[in-house]
Amino acid sequence: MIKHRVLIAGHWQAPCNVLGFFNAVAPATGKVFESMFPISGHADIEAMLEAGTRVAPILAATHPENIAIFLDTYADGIEHAGIKLCTFAHEETGLPIEPRFNTVELPRTVDQMHQAARISRDMSWTNPVIDTRLNLRACFAPLNKPVVIFGPNNFPLAFNAVAGSDFVSAIVARNPVIAKAHPSHPQTSQLLAEIAHAALIKSDLPVETVQFVYHMPSELGLTLVSDRRVGAVGFTGSRNGGLAIKAAADKAGVPAYLEMASINPVFVLSGALLEYGATLAQDFFTSCMLGNGQFCTRPGLIVLPSGHDGEVFVTEIIKRFTSAPDCILLSRGVQDNLMQSLDTLLAAGAQLVVGGKRVDGEGFRFRPTLLRVPAATFIAHPNSLQSEAFGPVSLLVVAESVEQMATLAATLEGNLTGTIYSASDAYDDEGYALIAPILRARVGRLLNNKMPTGVAVSAAMNHGGPYPATVHPMFTSVGLPAAIHRFVALHSYDAVRPDRLPPELHNRNPNGSLQRLIDGIWTTADITSG
Amino acid sequence: MIKHRVLIAGHWQAPCNVLGFFNAVAPATGKVFESMFPISGHADIEAMLEAGTRVAPILAATHPENIAIFLDTYADGIEHAGIKLCTFAHEETGLPIEPRFNTVELPRTVDQMHQAARISRDMSWTNPVIDTRLNLRACFAPLNKPVVIFGPNNFPLAFNAVAGSDFVSAIVARNPVIAKAHPSHPQTSQLLAEIAHAALIKSDLPVETVQFVYHMPSELGLTLVSDRRVGAVGFTGSRNGGLAIKAAADKAGVPAYLEMASINPVFVLSGALLEYGATLAQDFFTSCMLGNGQFCTRPGLIVLPSGHDGEVFVTEIIKRFTSAPDCILLSRGVQDNLMQSLDTLLAAGAQLVVGGKRVDGEGFRFRPTLLRVPAATFIAHPNSLQSEAFGPVSLLVVAESVEQMATLAATLEGNLTGTIYSASDAYDDEGYALIAPILRARVGRLLNNKMPTGVAVSAAMNHGGPYPATVHPMFTSVGLPAAIHRFVALHSYDAVRPDRLPPELHNRNPNGSLQRLIDGIWTTADITSG
Repeated sequence: MIKHRVLIAGHWQAPCNVLGFFNAVAPATGKVFESMFPISGHADIEAMLEAGTRVAPILAATHPENIAIFLDTYADGIEHAGIKLCTFAHEETGLPIEPRFNTVELPRTVDQMHQAARISRDMSWTNPVIDTRLNLRACFAPLNKPVVIFGPNNFPLAFNAVAGSDFVSAIVARNPVIAKAHPSHPQTSQLLAEIAHAALIKSDLPVETVQFVYHMPSELGLTLVSDRRVGAVGFTGSRNGGLAIKAAADKAGVPAYLEMASINPVFVLSGALLEYGATLAQDFFTSCMLGNGQFCTRPGLIVLPSGHDGEVFVTEIIKRFTSAPDCILLSRGVQDNLMQSLDTLLAAGAQLVVGGKRVDGEGFRFRPTLLRVPAATFIAHPNSLQSEAFGPVSLLVVAESVEQMATLAATLEGNLTGTIYSASDAYDDEGYALIAPILRARVGRLLNNKMPTGVAVSAAMNHGGPYPATVHPMFTSVGLPAAIHRFVALHSYDAVRPDRLPPELHNRNPNGSLQRLIDGIWTTADITSG
Repeated sequence: MIKHRVLIAGHWQAPCNVLGFFNAVAPATGKVFESMFPISGHADIEAMLEAGTRVAPILAATHPENIAIFLDTYADGIEHAGIKLCTFAHEETGLPIEPRFNTVELPRTVDQMHQAARISRDMSWTNPVIDTRLNLRACFAPLNKPVVIFGPNNFPLAFNAVAGSDFVSAIVARNPVIAKAHPSHPQTSQLLAEIAHAALIKSDLPVETVQFVYHMPSELGLTLVSDRRVGAVGFTGSRNGGLAIKAAADKAGVPAYLEMASINPVFVLSGALLEYGATLAQDFFTSCMLGNGQFCTRPGLIVLPSGHDGEVFVTEIIKRFTSAPDCILLSRGVQDNLMQSLDTLLAAGAQLVVGGKRVDGEGFRFRPTLLRVPAATFIAHPNSLQSEAFGPVSLLVVAESVEQMATLAATLEGNLTGTIYSASDAYDDEGYALIAPILRARVGRLLNNKMPTGVAVSAAMNHGGPYPATVHPMFTSVGLPAAIHRFVALHSYDAVRPDRLPPELHNRNPNGSLQRLIDGIWTTADITSG
């Protein structure tokens, strides 16, 4: 039994107070891993807040080049430890090394970190705005307080609290991070935190910049986020967990950015079925099975036209779901929640078509599952029928008309994504025009003829959406530099002496390439007068 | 007795249910105005929410040029009614027609509205970001829900719920507005709402775009902001009122943007006193008396060095405060709150130097007031000694050293502004370097050698700051286009067919001048391939 250390105040140390230990479990076998990891108590939290508060102004004054060096070094370290990281992640999640970790998630994590390094260098996240007539200058700046990040269970690398999008976003804005790993993959998270810590030392950043614990009781998590020393909170996870964090943070005036559940509705118009129904069935199935159904953006709801083509499509996907192998779920908790969500959906009138049960035997397995309900039933019970079932479960809804599809769309809560499949010609234009504006208002990202599971790390991404997909429709948690803006303060300088301005607001462009809004025009030019 | 109508669902109508009537009171005389205005009940709120929800998608689909025409028409209407508006505002606030309303606040209101019209035309608030490689395109878009705005008591024109910064920000983003006037100036607000309504009709916007009531019980205000049909809330006012609204809105996942109390600390370094102490005393006094001390950005706290120059400065401002005329306060409520805040400050150890009492006789008058406390006492009781006293009250703090000033700065909560006065040469550089980073982290706008009361409507303004000055350090409530971003949703389009994109995301630049971030470069060019 190894009792692991936590990373507090710049040192791997025994927890200040430990409330107990936990083991991770291999989802594929149900076997308990040998390693014992500590559950942090209040003294750990206090020590992290103290160190984070102390280091915040030092980090805020750090040159962006040093931040970039850290991120590049960290990314290199992740690549270097690639095989080990992928193996750990595989063991702790039950997801395959290939293609998932080695070809997709690890390169994504590394690339995102290099992108963040570039943005630290080009300073584009600071968004300088200068009014030369009034000598008023503004830019985004560090929060000067630590950012607390809670990682999710489903992306142990790319969304890890100590390596993912929230992490790099907070770091580029020169905020220290207090990371709470997800307890279902402590080994992966520990290795990432070790690489981060080594990279801090190598790149001469303050070692307190990244702090890391494995686990804490949920009430302590609430204590942490309701502490006014916290600058902001990043969270990816379930709605229940997220809303509890929001309530605690709200009371203290701490902004909390939560990426929560989403069912990602897909509307299929009749022309699309006619034109490429078979391909679509395969694409839908593939998208549903990605990560064993454990994607924030998996299509949990698909709305189809009634009639022959719709039924052919249904038959096609039934065939695929039926013959698909069992899905390994991330944990017993995920399995339990999935059963519960299924019960909710069934009780609300959905009918089981395929699957619908956990698989006995080793590990946490589940049958790929399809449910079905008429649109009229969905429209009558929209709240329970849009409960998220996190896992390989999708609800088919058969609609009598595009008008009914539009009515259904109007019952939807905020979602991360919404998709409409239509014919490549004008065949479906009327239906599209009816549904799209309603769906558009309810989702962060609208897709055409494409499954929503790919979340590109692009400046034009929105991995966000109206409540309750997130808590603020203006922000995204993926896509740089936009995701950084969750963790910044707007700093205006009024008649401040030139030598006292931050470099991005000097008359001279700080790096020759930073685009600045000067008197209403975006330009990389220096200011020559004033 | 005239019983006034409310503006609901596009029509001036009798309230759906009225809970009672109220009269405004002339602050200068204490006389009750004859006009009776209705206090709206639940049915009014429900009717406004229904109409706002109905019109939101229609307004979202409106051409930006029509929005601009409305704003220009409304601005012209305000100018046209200038004398009447200034007279009403003067009567209802006790503030002078000249220079305050006619020369400052009315032109500011008109100019802000024309600025908003220009931004609707140039579309710069939409911030288009295009990734041509992935065909991923994003921009800011309407919330598709009504925005609820609560106006403050102190700026009946420029911050009026139906004419101010929150209003134009919500409108440029094509969101309908539900405006609740401040009950201390119903006549002014009514006239503005009438001009707005006429401008809607003239410019062919849906008449439901602007709805307006005079008053509602505070518990109904909480009901309103906690309704999920609300897209966002804009509020300017007291901390107590703001935090109650925040708590209600938070529970429903409705973003609430609150601009609350602030004491706007001013630090004076010894070189500044030496160089221009006398001018500074006059500037400080003038700033404190603006709007009879009822500015969000009035300097409520001034920190001075001990010793001869500091005492000369104190003597100078004592002289000015002593000989200043009584200040007319906006309402009896302001007067009562001010007495209460004074009690808090005195109980915490502040000593009364000048004034400190309400003036008997007609109206709501108060003596210009100075309090004084040693820095050590402030540092020992920072919470109570930084209570806001909204009115012509300032607290002088005498510090033994710049180190002690820095220690004091570290005890400050979030503020809208922070100011440092220093010598024009390098004399005060050491002290500045010590205090500025601490103050910077705690304020939205940092000033050098300038009083904070001027809040320019500029793209580089930040009329915001860390909690509890506002509830989100990234947003400002003044300054376009930034203030608009409180009332938008981020819309990403993934592989969406060109003719289905909003104009700002087309390959062709929608107006030839909109600056767009295309593959990392801000440009007004069209996209020629892809």
